[in-house]
Amino acid sequence: MSERPDRATRRGFLSAFAGAAALAGLPPSSAAAQTTKASVEPFYGAHQAGIVTPVQTHAYFAAFDLTTAKRGEVAALLRDWSQSAARLTIGEPALGVGEGDYAAAPDATEMSGLDPARLTITFGFGTGLFEQDGRDRFGLKSLRPEAFVELPKFPGDQLAPARTGGDLLVQICADNPQVAFHAGRALAQRAYGVAALRWVQSGFVSNYGPGKTPRNLMGFKDGTANPRADSPQAMNEVVWAGAEAPVWMRGGSYVVVRRARMALEHWERTKVAFQEQTFGRDKLSGAPLGRKGEFDAVDLAAVDKDGNPIIPENSHVGLGRRATEAGHRILRRAFSYDDGANMIAERWPPWRQGMEFDAGLVFVCFQRDLRTGFIPIFEKMSRFDMLNQFVTNTGGGHWACPGGAREGDYIGRALLET
Amino acid sequence: MSERPDRATRRGFLSAFAGAAALAGLPPSSAAAQTTKASVEPFYGAHQAGIVTPVQTHAYFAAFDLTTAKRGEVAALLRDWSQSAARLTIGEPALGVGEGDYAAAPDATEMSGLDPARLTITFGFGTGLFEQDGRDRFGLKSLRPEAFVELPKFPGDQLAPARTGGDLLVQICADNPQVAFHAGRALAQRAYGVAALRWVQSGFVSNYGPGKTPRNLMGFKDGTANPRADSPQAMNEVVWAGAEAPVWMRGGSYVVVRRARMALEHWERTKVAFQEQTFGRDKLSGAPLGRKGEFDAVDLAAVDKDGNPIIPENSHVGLGRRATEAGHRILRRAFSYDDGANMIAERWPPWRQGMEFDAGLVFVCFQRDLRTGFIPIFEKMSRFDMLNQFVTNTGGGHWACPGGAREGDYIGRALLET
Repeated sequence: MSERPDRATRRGFLSAFAGAAALAGLPPSSAAAQTTKASVEPFYGAHQAGIVTPVQTHAYFAAFDLTTAKRGEVAALLRDWSQSAARLTIGEPALGVGEGDYAAAPDATEMSGLDPARLTITFGFGTGLFEQDGRDRFGLKSLRPEAFVELPKFPGDQLAPARTGGDLLVQICADNPQVAFHAGRALAQRAYGVAALRWVQSGFVSNYGPGKTPRNLMGFKDGTANPRADSPQAMNEVVWAGAEAPVWMRGGSYVVVRRARMALEHWERTKVAFQEQTFGRDKLSGAPLGRKGEFDAVDLAAVDKDGNPIIPENSHVGLGRRATEAGHRILRRAFSYDDGANMIAERWPPWRQGMEFDAGLVFVCFQRDLRTGFIPIFEKMSRFDMLNQFVTNTGGGHWACPGGAREGDYIGRALLET
Repeated sequence: MSERPDRATRRGFLSAFAGAAALAGLPPSSAAAQTTKASVEPFYGAHQAGIVTPVQTHAYFAAFDLTTAKRGEVAALLRDWSQSAARLTIGEPALGVGEGDYAAAPDATEMSGLDPARLTITFGFGTGLFEQDGRDRFGLKSLRPEAFVELPKFPGDQLAPARTGGDLLVQICADNPQVAFHAGRALAQRAYGVAALRWVQSGFVSNYGPGKTPRNLMGFKDGTANPRADSPQAMNEVVWAGAEAPVWMRGGSYVVVRRARMALEHWERTKVAFQEQTFGRDKLSGAPLGRKGEFDAVDLAAVDKDGNPIIPENSHVGLGRRATEAGHRILRRAFSYDDGANMIAERWPPWRQGMEFDAGLVFVCFQRDLRTGFIPIFEKMSRFDMLNQFVTNTGGGHWACPGGAREGDYIGRALLET
């Protein structure tokens, strides 16, 4: 293996990049000039992007563990990541890794020639930043928000440690998987020596058209009851941390990610009417059982002529509706995932033994307070939801995503530089 | 678990599906009426779709092993798969699995509401269909084409059996990952009892715009030297089996798939000039070294002022050009893949130990004859290509994709019903 490749400086390469832009008749200062405005989601702002942003068709989640013991290095990483993210979201390569002998290629640049595809990059802090094994690693323990509690162990959880948690979360979303993956690689590279990849997870969701609710891999519409992300008032109530939070967290949100494997081969062998009872909705229209339209009200009191509830109490929608009535709200922003197939050998009929799809849902939700959001909702659902027989949570975690940053500032400074 | 879900027949569900189309003001006979013509790639034709079809942005490969010993059941599967594929490519669900007690949901239908996104489904036969462990399993041994040889073991191959081979290959491509995955699930479900999933692999490639060559995850343009898929003459020479092949194979093509993991973390630490020497092309423009334009001729005789070749002989392009000069041609149709990250622990400096991306290239090529296509090209490349230090082949295989079928016929009948 050639240990000393030919000379090429980052400056030279970036010049070449700018040169290509110039050849294309573009101002050399910004490759993003070739992108349409619609394809750029601003990185800077009062809130982080990627939370109330209309959902993109692809996602890439990367969780990191901090390998440094120095708060200053964490701060430097977040500063660098913020600058890199701002560049990536306008279609420019991330910053270079430096000019050392063996570190030279600043960016794989496979996004060169692609528009940024509404790329958003959202940063979150894990509980480990504030306390790990009882230690106040970075002197931040006192700044941990009250709302940023640990998640309980829910019934049925099968969370594999290698797929769970992490000191830092980067949620990357874009309308192009290559743009999303490129950003993940670039940010992982920027973290060398300070934070190490713990797990990654990609996902996708289809755009069914304006105002249409996407379907999950069970074939059901997913997200019908979501609050309106385009309503600032609803988002202030449901999503954004307010005056109750420490200053650094105001305008931020707590995210929960759950990698939920679906037993698709089992699901597909059940009858549609049974599936509809499980969800509490009509499969094709998405209407609550007994109603006509997807957005018709869910009436849990409605009964059939024998006096039985039309929407089963333990259906997914029945439990979701009860949670809403109790004031527990979240903003869902879920993706499907397809991680190939692996061997499943079950011991009871009628199930087969063989390769099964490792596919399902990357459930993602944002909320103002975990204690009134995901936790009480899922405490009920994890116990009673009829869907549970087809879904297993195998990984994920929860993170505090700070408020947004102004240009020149970076995400998390109000925490890391206190 | 409820073992006897409520009654719901396939007929009832399909009616519901047609009903939804009717509600939307569409003819009940075809959900595809809502799709634009541009989003439908015809399944039936002289050749199978998905070979010279302009490349879609997503792919899903599924390899199957036959679990039946009866040729008639293989024929019935291919008949069913062809009919299902024809329906899927116009946006309709695949056929139902039957009306039995426990088999009821005909299709997950998560594609309901999506257009077919130029879905193509291409079927291939593995060498195991003709002979397995010396046995003529299905009485087809005498019909194996001469050109359908075994691949040699190439230097550096690290093919994991669980990711390699299979009696049947289904290549699914679409401009939407959900459409592609849905087709894979639906066809796997149709195969229950006759063929079992062996491995699956998803991939993606970006559309860089009309006439633009996409970039791979190393950041280089990939496919510049491809023959023109829109030239019937070139395809007759390079891709389609002709009179030299058995009747069932005429108009078909041999496909080679290689899952090539890229050592991205290593690649990114090399200098751009070294990367360009490795490829033999300029990174940004894609021009052969020493030239200006991507499609400028590759001149292996050009030397610098010291008499050294400008394009290294062992560069990827140098070897590719020599193969072309020797008359070895293939049609590349490659995708990138992102299969998450896993732990890599290396033992020599300067490489780190940690999580690395399991990502790279799903190399796919079609050719008229393996003996004058992939095999001689890769015999050279696997020995000498400077890229090999960054790429490892970990799976794949080769299959004979028969000619196309007319409506009412099915792929492979001329073989399976001889």
